[in-house]
Amino acid sequence: MFQLYHFPLDPMSRAVRLALAEYELDFELVEERVWERRHEFLALNPAGSVPVLIDEDQEGLLTICGSSVIAEYIRERYRTELEGKLLFPDNVEERAEMRRLVEWFDRKFQDEVTFNIVHQKVDRQFMAKDAGGGPPDMTVVHAGLHNLRYHLKYIEHLMGARNWLTGEDLTHADLAAAAHLSVVDYLGHVPWEEFPEAKTWYARLKSRRSFRALLSDQVARVIPAAHYTDLDF
Amino acid sequence: MFQLYHFPLDPMSRAVRLALAEYELDFELVEERVWERRHEFLALNPAGSVPVLIDEDQEGLLTICGSSVIAEYIRERYRTELEGKLLFPDNVEERAEMRRLVEWFDRKFQDEVTFNIVHQKVDRQFMAKDAGGGPPDMTVVHAGLHNLRYHLKYIEHLMGARNWLTGEDLTHADLAAAAHLSVVDYLGHVPWEEFPEAKTWYARLKSRRSFRALLSDQVARVIPAAHYTDLDF
Repeated sequence: MFQLYHFPLDPMSRAVRLALAEYELDFELVEERVWERRHEFLALNPAGSVPVLIDEDQEGLLTICGSSVIAEYIRERYRTELEGKLLFPDNVEERAEMRRLVEWFDRKFQDEVTFNIVHQKVDRQFMAKDAGGGPPDMTVVHAGLHNLRYHLKYIEHLMGARNWLTGEDLTHADLAAAAHLSVVDYLGHVPWEEFPEAKTWYARLKSRRSFRALLSDQVARVIPAAHYTDLDF
Repeated sequence: MFQLYHFPLDPMSRAVRLALAEYELDFELVEERVWERRHEFLALNPAGSVPVLIDEDQEGLLTICGSSVIAEYIRERYRTELEGKLLFPDNVEERAEMRRLVEWFDRKFQDEVTFNIVHQKVDRQFMAKDAGGGPPDMTVVHAGLHNLRYHLKYIEHLMGARNWLTGEDLTHADLAAAAHLSVVDYLGHVPWEEFPEAKTWYARLKSRRSFRALLSDQVARVIPAAHYTDLDF
């Protein structure tokens, strides 16, 4: 049994939820508002960020911090149980390609798109004014929306030659990318009609069973876009 | 034989140089000024960032992008040849701890310290004015220096209970941390005297053979601090 400290609209938390659901591993969600900087949570992860996975099967409640670290940990610890459904490619070159793409989304997309849009439109609604809270700075949001088109084009470029982002099979790269996009989509900001190949790729992911819990997320103060749960968007 | 696209004062490139030197693998350095956004380089890594490793032993010149991706690739590809000297701990829990710390330095330290100091004092000296070049914004540099103390304290906290940052053995976590600090140290900005345990840890790394090439780096327009190459600093 796992516990996952997460925030519903945090993309890195969402990537882990998708992975655990793909693996059909049971887990319990604990919502953490990282900006409150709870003492007990900082003791689990001094970086103060989600996701944090607690593996209760291990002696002494093992704590694993960060989406990539969690992905590598689950592969190494449960590779026998998960044989045949691992979200890592089988060969070394493709694993390098997968990790490159995970970093692409968790660093580059995060810095250029997610942070600009989600920090402004979600996090700042919850944060105290003296901690940087307040209404969104729309100049920053628009910069994020501008950058988003470049990333959607890159997804289209990859999908022009591949079945999933890394190659033949679904991997953590797809989950990382979809997790980021799902948060921007919750806010209604993805121009899907301009990027039909990216839309087809995302629709395939969105209709998977692992995606269901994400689509039923509701966050107080933040209303999802009308098409957010629609599988034929 | 490997080729490594790098920039001398880029910490992620330095971490790879240290790892390859620890492994006694031969490699050739190719200096890349990423802000020039060379077409041929973007074809290797569309993210436009260093480090990029070309593995010439592989058919078709395999391209591996990013310091963590390169570290995982070398472990997976050359684990037999490197048996006994791998920079990864032997057990799953410690590997998770190592990866957490590598992310700590490559994301948190990078965003809070390195970027504030090195982007202002190095990169902006090379960049064209209309691309954001110019003299350093000292308010930003000072924010970086303020944050640096918190990270040095964290290194001291870890070293209070461990032989190296992850545990008993030298790992990529030490190399990542030392690579970031080495760039700030090149600029003369690490208050070592206030953090004696961190200083002792860094001195052990600095006196390793793998560190020598880093200490002889010279970057036009950026003069290293007087003690930078001194092993008894």
